[in-house]
Amino acid sequence: MRFDVLTLFPEMIEQFCSYSIMKRAVERDVFRLNVVNPREFTLDKHKKVDDTPYGGGAGMVLMAQPYVDAYESIVRADKSITVLLSPQGEPFTDSIVNEFAQADQIILLCGHYEGFDERIRDIINPREISIGDFVLTGGELPALCVIDAVSRKLEGTLGKLESAEEDSFSNGLLEYPHYTKPREYRGLNVPDVLLNGNHKQIKEFRYQESLKRTQERRPDLYEKFIKTSS
Amino acid sequence: MRFDVLTLFPEMIEQFCSYSIMKRAVERDVFRLNVVNPREFTLDKHKKVDDTPYGGGAGMVLMAQPYVDAYESIVRADKSITVLLSPQGEPFTDSIVNEFAQADQIILLCGHYEGFDERIRDIINPREISIGDFVLTGGELPALCVIDAVSRKLEGTLGKLESAEEDSFSNGLLEYPHYTKPREYRGLNVPDVLLNGNHKQIKEFRYQESLKRTQERRPDLYEKFIKTSS
Repeated sequence: MRFDVLTLFPEMIEQFCSYSIMKRAVERDVFRLNVVNPREFTLDKHKKVDDTPYGGGAGMVLMAQPYVDAYESIVRADKSITVLLSPQGEPFTDSIVNEFAQADQIILLCGHYEGFDERIRDIINPREISIGDFVLTGGELPALCVIDAVSRKLEGTLGKLESAEEDSFSNGLLEYPHYTKPREYRGLNVPDVLLNGNHKQIKEFRYQESLKRTQERRPDLYEKFIKTSS
Repeated sequence: MRFDVLTLFPEMIEQFCSYSIMKRAVERDVFRLNVVNPREFTLDKHKKVDDTPYGGGAGMVLMAQPYVDAYESIVRADKSITVLLSPQGEPFTDSIVNEFAQADQIILLCGHYEGFDERIRDIINPREISIGDFVLTGGELPALCVIDAVSRKLEGTLGKLESAEEDSFSNGLLEYPHYTKPREYRGLNVPDVLLNGNHKQIKEFRYQESLKRTQERRPDLYEKFIKTSS
């Protein structure tokens, strides 16, 4: 897998990928990261990448030329997906993560400030993805969410002791509660069933806890799960 | 506003807040950022903060003691909200952003690896927030999303030339398309109405484009908007 990220703030992307599990995935060559700054492609003599909006209003708009030229400079792999991060996109979910994990390359377009000149969308025709119904300063955090979530599904990112198979959403439910040492902390005990070594009982306990938690917190997911499994 | 972030990776949080609009907000004292590492609170002689799960299974679970002690070390402001970031939480939306922007302090608890010992939730009783139905390596990116989205609503973060008032969701709709110079790019022209200086027409054009885009891309938001405004 290769992630190509178009951003005016390359360090935001590069630094995040120098920590923890992402760092290890890069070192193990599970994915490669290439960051491209549209500012290096501007033909404007003052190196401008944004300007005021036609029709008036607040904020600066990212100009088409530097973004489109930067995009076209990227070498394309066979199975390549281009993603523009914006609150106007399709909501990002675990099933999209699984779909993206099948690609050879994901090109991520990060906006900043007020947004993209609409002709960037017209020319590149990207898949538009939103991580949620809230507004951020730029597409960098959403792009990092895509890189992180997709990387977790690639072989070699998680170690032997980790697993994405029991994560929330992998079976359509929220995850069950976890407990680790000590058995008792401030008067609160680990449930007995987790200590008895009976794997069938443990599995059933965790499944029931997942069901209960999903029903309480996310009736929308619970209904979907019940429909699908009946 | 003050953000206190509990994380095993303090630099992930600190570095992000050293860029762009976040950096300016910190410099202008719009918010203060305090990062606390639970590893500094562990009573374990090997400085351990995680251990294997009771009942078996993959991954490491964050131990209660270092997290709870780190949490209790934080000085509390009057209007303080404690938020635990997890895929099992309430979906984060623009209306929660507005609610959080009224607080004096937001304490953000970031997990990592497989998750929190359940007794951390039992003792701290945080508000649990999810940025979306996907799984990440840790709560650091979601915490940064909260900091970024909430900061945008605080006076002084955005400059005179910026505005959160016309962002997506601020009126229940997705944002209209933006255009900046040049008028023509690769044969694609800026819509004439944006060039004629008639502010009433421009406003109407943008409203119609917002409506259309919301109906096409997010029928759920569109229906809600129509119900509310009729």
